[in-house]
Amino acid sequence: MKSYEPKSDRSSQLSEEEDLFDYAYEQPGSMPGTLNIEKDAEHPDIVLIDYNSDRADRRNNLIPEECAEYLDTDSVSWFDLKGLGSEDILQRLGRVFHLHPLILEDVVNVPQRPKIEDYQDQLVIITQMVVPKLQEEGFWLEQVSLIVGKNYVLTVQEQAERDCFRPVRRRIRYKKGNIRSQGADYLAYTLWDAIIDGFFPVLEIYGEKIEDLEDEVIFNPSNQSLAKIYQIKRELLALRRAIWPQRNALNTLIRDGSHSINPDILIFLRDCYDHSVQIIDIIETYRELASSLTDIYLSAISNKMNEVMKLLTVISSIFIPLTFIAGIYGMNFDPDDSPWNMPELNWYWGYPFFWLLTIAIATSLIYLFWRRGWFKNFSNPPK
Amino acid sequence: MKSYEPKSDRSSQLSEEEDLFDYAYEQPGSMPGTLNIEKDAEHPDIVLIDYNSDRADRRNNLIPEECAEYLDTDSVSWFDLKGLGSEDILQRLGRVFHLHPLILEDVVNVPQRPKIEDYQDQLVIITQMVVPKLQEEGFWLEQVSLIVGKNYVLTVQEQAERDCFRPVRRRIRYKKGNIRSQGADYLAYTLWDAIIDGFFPVLEIYGEKIEDLEDEVIFNPSNQSLAKIYQIKRELLALRRAIWPQRNALNTLIRDGSHSINPDILIFLRDCYDHSVQIIDIIETYRELASSLTDIYLSAISNKMNEVMKLLTVISSIFIPLTFIAGIYGMNFDPDDSPWNMPELNWYWGYPFFWLLTIAIATSLIYLFWRRGWFKNFSNPPK
Amino acid sequence: MKSYEPKSDRSSQLSEEEDLFDYAYEQPGSMPGTLNIEKDAEHPDIVLIDYNSDRADRRNNLIPEECAEYLDTDSVSWFDLKGLGSEDILQRLGRVFHLHPLILEDVVNVPQRPKIEDYQDQLVIITQMVVPKLQEEGFWLEQVSLIVGKNYVLTVQEQAERDCFRPVRRRIRYKKGNIRSQGADYLAYTLWDAIIDGFFPVLEIYGEKIEDLEDEVIFNPSNQSLAKIYQIKRELLALRRAIWPQRNALNTLIRDGSHSINPDILIFLRDCYDHSVQIIDIIETYRELASSLTDIYLSAISNKMNEVMKLLTVISSIFIPLTFIAGIYGMNFDPDDSPWNMPELNWYWGYPFFWLLTIAIATSLIYLFWRRGWFKNFSNPPK
Amino acid sequence: MKSYEPKSDRSSQLSEEEDLFDYAYEQPGSMPGTLNIEKDAEHPDIVLIDYNSDRADRRNNLIPEECAEYLDTDSVSWFDLKGLGSEDILQRLGRVFHLHPLILEDVVNVPQRPKIEDYQDQLVIITQMVVPKLQEEGFWLEQVSLIVGKNYVLTVQEQAERDCFRPVRRRIRYKKGNIRSQGADYLAYTLWDAIIDGFFPVLEIYGEKIEDLEDEVIFNPSNQSLAKIYQIKRELLALRRAIWPQRNALNTLIRDGSHSINPDILIFLRDCYDHSVQIIDIIETYRELASSLTDIYLSAISNKMNEVMKLLTVISSIFIPLTFIAGIYGMNFDPDDSPWNMPELNWYWGYPFFWLLTIAIATSLIYLFWRRGWFKNFSNPPK
Amino acid sequence: MKSYEPKSDRSSQLSEEEDLFDYAYEQPGSMPGTLNIEKDAEHPDIVLIDYNSDRADRRNNLIPEECAEYLDTDSVSWFDLKGLGSEDILQRLGRVFHLHPLILEDVVNVPQRPKIEDYQDQLVIITQMVVPKLQEEGFWLEQVSLIVGKNYVLTVQEQAERDCFRPVRRRIRYKKGNIRSQGADYLAYTLWDAIIDGFFPVLEIYGEKIEDLEDEVIFNPSNQSLAKIYQIKRELLALRRAIWPQRNALNTLIRDGSHSINPDILIFLRDCYDHSVQIIDIIETYRELASSLTDIYLSAISNKMNEVMKLLTVISSIFIPLTFIAGIYGMNFDPDDSPWNMPELNWYWGYPFFWLLTIAIATSLIYLFWRRGWFKNFSNPPK
Repeated sequence: MKSYEPKSDRSSQLSEEEDLFDYAYEQPGSMPGTLNIEKDAEHPDIVLIDYNSDRADRRNNLIPEECAEYLDTDSVSWFDLKGLGSEDILQRLGRVFHLHPLILEDVVNVPQRPKIEDYQDQLVIITQMVVPKLQEEGFWLEQVSLIVGKNYVLTVQEQAERDCFRPVRRRIRYKKGNIRSQGADYLAYTLWDAIIDGFFPVLEIYGEKIEDLEDEVIFNPSNQSLAKIYQIKRELLALRRAIWPQRNALNTLIRDGSHSINPDILIFLRDCYDHSVQIIDIIETYRELASSLTDIYLSAISNKMNEVMKLLTVISSIFIPLTFIAGIYGMNFDPDDSPWNMPELNWYWGYPFFWLLTIAIATSLIYLFWRRGWFKNFSNPPK
Repeated sequence: MKSYEPKSDRSSQLSEEEDLFDYAYEQPGSMPGTLNIEKDAEHPDIVLIDYNSDRADRRNNLIPEECAEYLDTDSVSWFDLKGLGSEDILQRLGRVFHLHPLILEDVVNVPQRPKIEDYQDQLVIITQMVVPKLQEEGFWLEQVSLIVGKNYVLTVQEQAERDCFRPVRRRIRYKKGNIRSQGADYLAYTLWDAIIDGFFPVLEIYGEKIEDLEDEVIFNPSNQSLAKIYQIKRELLALRRAIWPQRNALNTLIRDGSHSINPDILIFLRDCYDHSVQIIDIIETYRELASSLTDIYLSAISNKMNEVMKLLTVISSIFIPLTFIAGIYGMNFDPDDSPWNMPELNWYWGYPFFWLLTIAIATSLIYLFWRRGWFKNFSNPPK
Repeated sequence: MKSYEPKSDRSSQLSEEEDLFDYAYEQPGSMPGTLNIEKDAEHPDIVLIDYNSDRADRRNNLIPEECAEYLDTDSVSWFDLKGLGSEDILQRLGRVFHLHPLILEDVVNVPQRPKIEDYQDQLVIITQMVVPKLQEEGFWLEQVSLIVGKNYVLTVQEQAERDCFRPVRRRIRYKKGNIRSQGADYLAYTLWDAIIDGFFPVLEIYGEKIEDLEDEVIFNPSNQSLAKIYQIKRELLALRRAIWPQRNALNTLIRDGSHSINPDILIFLRDCYDHSVQIIDIIETYRELASSLTDIYLSAISNKMNEVMKLLTVISSIFIPLTFIAGIYGMNFDPDDSPWNMPELNWYWGYPFFWLLTIAIATSLIYLFWRRGWFKNFSNPPK
Repeated sequence: MKSYEPKSDRSSQLSEEEDLFDYAYEQPGSMPGTLNIEKDAEHPDIVLIDYNSDRADRRNNLIPEECAEYLDTDSVSWFDLKGLGSEDILQRLGRVFHLHPLILEDVVNVPQRPKIEDYQDQLVIITQMVVPKLQEEGFWLEQVSLIVGKNYVLTVQEQAERDCFRPVRRRIRYKKGNIRSQGADYLAYTLWDAIIDGFFPVLEIYGEKIEDLEDEVIFNPSNQSLAKIYQIKRELLALRRAIWPQRNALNTLIRDGSHSINPDILIFLRDCYDHSVQIIDIIETYRELASSLTDIYLSAISNKMNEVMKLLTVISSIFIPLTFIAGIYGMNFDPDDSPWNMPELNWYWGYPFFWLLTIAIATSLIYLFWRRGWFKNFSNPPK
Repeated sequence: MKSYEPKSDRSSQLSEEEDLFDYAYEQPGSMPGTLNIEKDAEHPDIVLIDYNSDRADRRNNLIPEECAEYLDTDSVSWFDLKGLGSEDILQRLGRVFHLHPLILEDVVNVPQRPKIEDYQDQLVIITQMVVPKLQEEGFWLEQVSLIVGKNYVLTVQEQAERDCFRPVRRRIRYKKGNIRSQGADYLAYTLWDAIIDGFFPVLEIYGEKIEDLEDEVIFNPSNQSLAKIYQIKRELLALRRAIWPQRNALNTLIRDGSHSINPDILIFLRDCYDHSVQIIDIIETYRELASSLTDIYLSAISNKMNEVMKLLTVISSIFIPLTFIAGIYGMNFDPDDSPWNMPELNWYWGYPFFWLLTIAIATSLIYLFWRRGWFKNFSNPPK
């Protein structure tokens, strides 16, 4: 499971995000079907929701073998496994559900690239779920695998704490809509739809962040603006990596169909597909805007330097000539030795004349700079 | 409905545009067919125009159930619903027109991505309409949904105030062209054509804006030039997002046909498709031009800084050496102590000699700078 | 018709080009087939060239109805209409040639996107012709429509003054090659080939312009260099917009064939297609070169600023320390008050020692700068 | 074989990498099937592992002719040739295995572009293997060719020292998994899978390098940062060149199948394909991040220059006016000659007044700069 | 024929390369089949090599009509025409070989875009040959056309002096490999293979040039570095334009086959195709590296400017305050007039105190700059 939390300390903030681009792989050359159990993975817990139009039962803490009896009933059974911490339980689960070793590997060795695999009597959907954090800013990226059988759905999540399936559970429990009268394929659609719709609230946050950054880079660019843009870019990249393969999987499923999905359900999946396309659209738009902001930022920095240079130039251009003039009258040519030697020093109005000259030069230079519009921007000070 | 209004206050101007990239989504996990009624949405109002080659009647303020009687007549009926403020009316409308819940959802939860959905006896077209503002600069982006049945068209718009269908109503009323002798599919084409042609006048404005910006960034670049380019880019992005999926929808419709569209009408839709391609062409061209303008702007800033630096360098290079010379003759080595100590101070022509030296140095430096062409650009002053 | 003329006045020059990206559109919602007659359009003039292998006749100033008699003869008839200034004549022409209203609209409302439309007994080709200006630099972009019938070709041009068909007329008149013994489809190929080959001489000019700009931005970059690159980019963009859809139209025609084109002619069209691909190739290459030139220009500006800064730094670094030393010996500490107070002032070799110090500092600084290679570039002066 | 070793000496480090983009080619016009034996190539050594579900034998130092007897047995034979230093042995090997001359050429003249060639009774797979170095940072890129026959696999490697097949050998020896009960096609899959999975550990290193560079370019950019980014870019480019054609080859193989591959094995190859897509995904993501880092670096340099300029401007702006004032009171206008001549010099509080003026000017300038926020960034010093 | 020779004079060097993007076109509207004979074209010379497995004869200086007798023999005849300087001979050749006028036009009006045209009994291949120059750096781009008939190959080259077919002639003469026992299609493959393999040695040179430029732009960037990068980019662009269409032609030929090519030869052409893909791969990699070098160059310039600015700032920041202090003690406030007037001047330790102050200020400033790391980069001097 990949997590993202902005930190107050800037340095660690960037390091922290690296695992946005995490990926699972086995030791090269290892057997197909090898399961990597991470040390900090939670112990698996299986929750069953078994329902038909008349009733909806819930059982917690099943062991894998207990699942077997529900596989051939007429009711729809949703097995929700959370936690990938026990190879023994996962292997037993694989045997109960007749999972191909490669499928079990993909389900357990998270994160994998989202995809769809259509087996004889099972449809396997690997997805990525985005869950916004509650207490703090940020989101979790977590793999959710859906194994869709004749009348059951097995979902495999990385941990127990959070998911986006609560509204689905409520709809089953309170018989909202027609979910209770539909089959396992409709349940699978509902779950996948919830996963894909979960991208929207997260994207909304990025829309607002980009809006804030627009004002910042135009009116008040700082050293950190570009780091923020970079961060948005990489988080959008992570979201795109999570949604893009799901779009392709949906497209394949709608085009080719599947034994496990009733054709009537395909129209709902088409809706789901439309949403995934819209999400990709939004992500691409945000990425283009973020790229344009980089240009604006770079030009804002250049503008700031321009202002600094102008200030230096104005002050230097005015005072360096004046200092030269003052330097002249500080010379020690002796007026007594020759009438040509700095006679100004002995003039009655010498000193006032010097000031007149000084003020005249300064005024005309300031006028020249003013005419070029150099003072225009000093009013709203760059920072 | 997404609106765009340039504001005099720059800060709010940028914030305001954010909703150009607005999009509708439901609570993740909510039922398919859930309708989101926005608080500020207008109350729905249905206007019917019912016509055949002999007559054209108009009825205002229909209730959904009144529509039913027109569905099976021989005349063409155009139901124009404006306003999405009442879930009750929309649900009743859905029942009267036998709309699939997912379609009703797409029609009501605006804005959706434009698309086409071909049902058994209905063709559903989701489009985006661009309406230029009358009083002020800017445009409105608004979703218009067309449901095309056997002999009726149902259009759903977000609000009553503005649309681009006035010329169509007039053509029906005054029997201009052959619209009155054609079926509902021709009406649908006419409406979609009006929507797509509505992009042209808006694009024309951007053509002029880019033209103005070309002059601005080359001859008079200011801090705000890049912000303007950025704004044009993002508004073009919004227009592209509105037209691109319509092009695809038209292409699909022309290629695959539809039960609801007579093949004779397809040639008109091909014309419509050509226009959408031309619009995308223009948008892409404008975006490339806007990108090139960014380069020009950045180089213009660099050129300005170059001018500032040259001015500083010219003035410093001339006066700093002169100040040094003046400094020399301000030293207090006593000529009386030694014949080697600053004998110049006692020369008869000492002071004139100093000025000669000064002027000679200044002149040769100015000549050097002039030969390098540094004064060439001072005539048309950068700002 | 879109025209391009470089002006001596830079400001208007840029404005002038805007209509390179001109496009025709009707009032949104207007009837299909609406003709927009521009006020400054020329009055239509129809010229007929009627030929077979034995004879070639020419008739000027036909009225549309006179064309009818030539439509069913055995000879090949080329009707060349120039000028789009009269709706009446154009409508009558449409009736005589049985043109679909949408075709007439595309032919009259110029410029349209080039395309090909294959009707039952007519092939309609919308093309863009490039005509280099004779007296001055620049080119005209003009729409030419070809309607190819069983044994006639109708060409519609915007105005009478210029086209690129003169060599074709001469080949018909003087019976050069085998054009006189071929049908209308061969004539259409010949005309289209002339239009496409007309791009080459214009492109050759851009090749030379880019070559000139290479030298300019590397050795003598000025404020206007980037504006010139921008202008080349936008004119290439306009040419690409004119040729790209023609390539697609040719490809479609070769792949799908047409009732109006004899399969034997397709091999000639393949040659035509190769030329259009080559033109696009060249345009893309030029655009890539122009983009690279932008990079070179920006770095040339940076290099220039580097030179300016180096000059400032050299002069400041040398004279500011020296001025400080001169300032020291201008202090008024009284050597009489204390033996520690500036005894140098009373030294016999004080002043020569000062100069020695000064020259030593200046020389070593100059040596340092020289070793860093700062003087290397002053010889070929930046401007 | 292409090697990469970072060197302490920066100059040689970059030169060294050039052979990342090495490629083999023959003298133009030479015969197809010409073998280029490099001088420093190792002498070929053939190791045979022959196994079925009951036993697994290993023979070292086979000569090519000894291989022949194993080709038609029932057991699976893995011939592992290492070293390409003897044309004689390679030619004999080609005859024993009936290799097409072009195949032998591709296998021997390394490196070739990875590809797949399906012959009548042989499947030839050209791959690129990445082996991380053990002692030092870096990786080796080496071509591995797999020739898959009915019940044998011939692998050809460039040298003996290193490969990523050790886990596969162990699985055969200790009968781990079901490799011993499968055919030659499963062995080929296992080997290719090991090659592709070998990219992951190398990519992990680049993920960490990019993470380190993010901190570096934001907080501590140096001259070498961009060189490091460039190096990462070119190494990622080399990895992409190695994996991309393998993805295509896998895709072709899965889509078209092969006589030499049992359809049951295709599901494993699909897993392999998924991994190759994921590797490309990661490489592209890293390349985009590296490109964004370039922008950040350039802006960081600009920011540093901004700081330098601000410091110069602050010090110049404060002290140049003050020096002018000090210069004034160093002038030699004689107060005795006129009451207007610098009467300040004779004031009782003249000197304290001068200091008051000086401090007042300096303080107000510092206050102005402070208000513009110029001192904000001096605390964390740029380097 | 397009030639490239680097010149010592930079200006002409760039101009010279322009013809890398040369292309042939006829006067728009001219007849298909018009031959443009360039004035400086060489007189055509036909060399025949006629061979079968028993013998190989060579005849020089054939006239076109003499070729006819070899067309229907059983031996393979290779007619090698060099020089395009005589329309008469070329037209006669066209008649002897029954060339379509459009083919003759493509063969004679060089350079054309490489392509393949499959006629009834002839396969026409237009290629571009790269020949490295022997005496100097650079390469020639020259069109070679191959007309492949039943048992002959006609090659048309622009001039006699150079080609890359020498090894092929030797293989025929000395009966190396099996070329003598194969047909005309094998000869055609051999020639095309020689042409494509001819790109490799040229590319190797660019690999080395890029390697050299890497060191140059990082450690020693000069004004000309970017011009060199630009030159490499444009030459790679020219090579890409020459090889890309050949790849497409090969792909078409392999996919569709041809009457003139025996299916057994297709496997050899696949090898040829692989090489063309590899060449494009290498060119694209080099272009990406060249683009990255541009970024490094721009940042290197910025770094240099940073160093210059730091030097200026260090010297100004140290000496401007000191000059101010020296200026203070150069003021003429008279200590005799008031005890407050510059009492320091009369202190016993006044002057040493001044130096103490001066050195203390200078030292602390230098320490501050040193702590910011400004002196770090002065050791390896930028140039």
